[in-house]
Amino acid sequence: MASSLSISSICSMRNGAELSNFPLTQKGSLKSAPSILLPGRRRSSGFPLFTRATQEHIVSPLPSYRPYEQEREVSPRFSGASTADAGVQKMYVYEFNENDRNSPAYLPFSLRFDLAKGRPSGGIGDLVTFTNKVYDGSLQTRLGITAGMHIMIKHYPKEKGHRYEAIFSFYFGDYGHISVQGSYLTFKDSEFAITGGSGIFTGVYGVVKLHQIVNPNKHFYTFELEGIPPLPSALTRTPVPPSASVRASRGAMQAAPGSVAPNFTD
Amino acid sequence: MASSLSISSICSMRNGAELSNFPLTQKGSLKSAPSILLPGRRRSSGFPLFTRATQEHIVSPLPSYRPYEQEREVSPRFSGASTADAGVQKMYVYEFNENDRNSPAYLPFSLRFDLAKGRPSGGIGDLVTFTNKVYDGSLQTRLGITAGMHIMIKHYPKEKGHRYEAIFSFYFGDYGHISVQGSYLTFKDSEFAITGGSGIFTGVYGVVKLHQIVNPNKHFYTFELEGIPPLPSALTRTPVPPSASVRASRGAMQAAPGSVAPNFTD
Amino acid sequence: MASSLSISSICSMRNGAELSNFPLTQKGSLKSAPSILLPGRRRSSGFPLFTRATQEHIVSPLPSYRPYEQEREVSPRFSGASTADAGVQKMYVYEFNENDRNSPAYLPFSLRFDLAKGRPSGGIGDLVTFTNKVYDGSLQTRLGITAGMHIMIKHYPKEKGHRYEAIFSFYFGDYGHISVQGSYLTFKDSEFAITGGSGIFTGVYGVVKLHQIVNPNKHFYTFELEGIPPLPSALTRTPVPPSASVRASRGAMQAAPGSVAPNFTD
Repeated sequence: MASSLSISSICSMRNGAELSNFPLTQKGSLKSAPSILLPGRRRSSGFPLFTRATQEHIVSPLPSYRPYEQEREVSPRFSGASTADAGVQKMYVYEFNENDRNSPAYLPFSLRFDLAKGRPSGGIGDLVTFTNKVYDGSLQTRLGITAGMHIMIKHYPKEKGHRYEAIFSFYFGDYGHISVQGSYLTFKDSEFAITGGSGIFTGVYGVVKLHQIVNPNKHFYTFELEGIPPLPSALTRTPVPPSASVRASRGAMQAAPGSVAPNFTD
Repeated sequence: MASSLSISSICSMRNGAELSNFPLTQKGSLKSAPSILLPGRRRSSGFPLFTRATQEHIVSPLPSYRPYEQEREVSPRFSGASTADAGVQKMYVYEFNENDRNSPAYLPFSLRFDLAKGRPSGGIGDLVTFTNKVYDGSLQTRLGITAGMHIMIKHYPKEKGHRYEAIFSFYFGDYGHISVQGSYLTFKDSEFAITGGSGIFTGVYGVVKLHQIVNPNKHFYTFELEGIPPLPSALTRTPVPPSASVRASRGAMQAAPGSVAPNFTD
Repeated sequence: MASSLSISSICSMRNGAELSNFPLTQKGSLKSAPSILLPGRRRSSGFPLFTRATQEHIVSPLPSYRPYEQEREVSPRFSGASTADAGVQKMYVYEFNENDRNSPAYLPFSLRFDLAKGRPSGGIGDLVTFTNKVYDGSLQTRLGITAGMHIMIKHYPKEKGHRYEAIFSFYFGDYGHISVQGSYLTFKDSEFAITGGSGIFTGVYGVVKLHQIVNPNKHFYTFELEGIPPLPSALTRTPVPPSASVRASRGAMQAAPGSVAPNFTD
């Protein structure tokens, strides 16, 4: 019992700790961010031009298996005029920690602590699992979430930051998801490899660049997507330029009808 | 010593806990599952039509390096008539937890427990590492194993389930392996992105759909593979429709000759 | 407090433990390795033929967004004459644990220990995070690091070794990075799937083979890269044949000018 408490006393730091450089902790500045004018195109028609059916499916009972004809099946995502590979396509999204998903969970297994500051100092062995909200670049639409983990690799005293190996995914509701991996650096912008995707992102490759706006609560991502058909227009709206004051539109934050991706991930 | 015991008292819950929705725990229903008739094609000729050599290799001593001629080297997997990309190919496999691999290891780092039920309640910070057995869709052949981890992302009280970020691989003996990533949902079917492969799956992309048959002990997967030559016939047998009573053939469970993939992974 | 100490007493084994088969522990044999003659081409001109600009970028302020013209943008990595896919290209690198990165961190969450030997015995639930140095195959150039984790899957008593699910990346400075996943076996050579890449490796697929030279401190990797333009000559130098005595050149170990990749990762 005593030991149980003491383990908690170490590990529960993940709730209270304010790691100076840690991504997207629970103490944000969103609450005091002023309302801002959103430039660019405004949401005009809710969720246009995306009529793809949900991917929900119940496999059993299976009506019939015809494995030898399977090559002729057409994936729904490739039906219609959007079959062609569209080259390099950019897609912009925002990732915000709005302090409502109990994220991140900082697991200080390196057992290295800055006792003067009363928090983990960050060493190899630390793990961080996280999930944040994802909005489209125009900040008019709630798309979904991020989900995954960071593996602490190295502390850079001069830069006052850390290198993590990041392995996570972006979820976009019925649009599908994109998985990525690479170095997350807390002290400058990062770039991840796209390792796979589902839904409209099936077969995707390329990279995604992370720009830190307010560390650790606001990230702006620029995807360079290859190997997939043209994106739906709902995902290619003109992005709001990143700044410390950006926040999602009221409708998107409230997940109001017309301000969310179809079956947005939450 | 006392502390060592007390850590065990928390963490060893992974052995005794029966998380209601957790994937493939050690308490299964296979023992009481009745023997069933297997529809479709029966195993007729052991392991036909797959003559690919093992990939075992000893790198050193290296006879000669000719890096500038390397582009002309032909990968063994692309030799012969099966060079062409075969489009979207479906492949069905079963994943069973037969309670003999000491899996999963549930690591309750969220420190959230349902004290009334005496088990972890599941919160962000929990990690789960696992490995289960993999059979082909016809249940006549033991192919290999799964191996990887689930990262707890969110609990959904209404659905009485959880979302995990799943990062794992399927191993198929000498055929090679397929790595995947995506959301594993305990309360409905899931879909993962294929992130890479080796052996005959080198260069693969696409998705795999997970259908839960008996949560958490029996999963049925439908791969939609792209970017690779035609699959060997041993991997495209007519699958047994998923049902609560499915189990592998006696020969496959016993890894008998003729009922296993070449150098099946174990 | 007492409990904190006792947790340390278990977990800090990661620093002192000498797992017989564990990859790249801190007790190496490099210190006593004799200086060797390096065959093949010697470094002649520092870092020739690679003029690609750094990928550092500051996203905001954004001068202008033209998402509808983005398809015409040309990625810097595809500029010039090296646009064409070069088929299967081999690339050789060495990974050494030189005991200077505090790696690996062995997290013995399986709670299985060999009490006679005073160290973890390795069971499912154990996690290992690691980062080592990466040199080119000729051992003349420090390229960067590896970073990631191993998930313990199974112990093989007969082979006196373990299977880990390996999820990690190779970093090559401004050249970019390659992410991989697959089984790491401590008792024989392994093969991983390439899951993605950035920089000159954007869009890469294929496999990488790991040859263990001195377990666990020296690994030799053979990449079979597909889907990317021809590699720069700095990455295709004739490799030194792997042997127990290989070590990086003095310049590469000291990260001297002319012996490092542009902005080599550290």
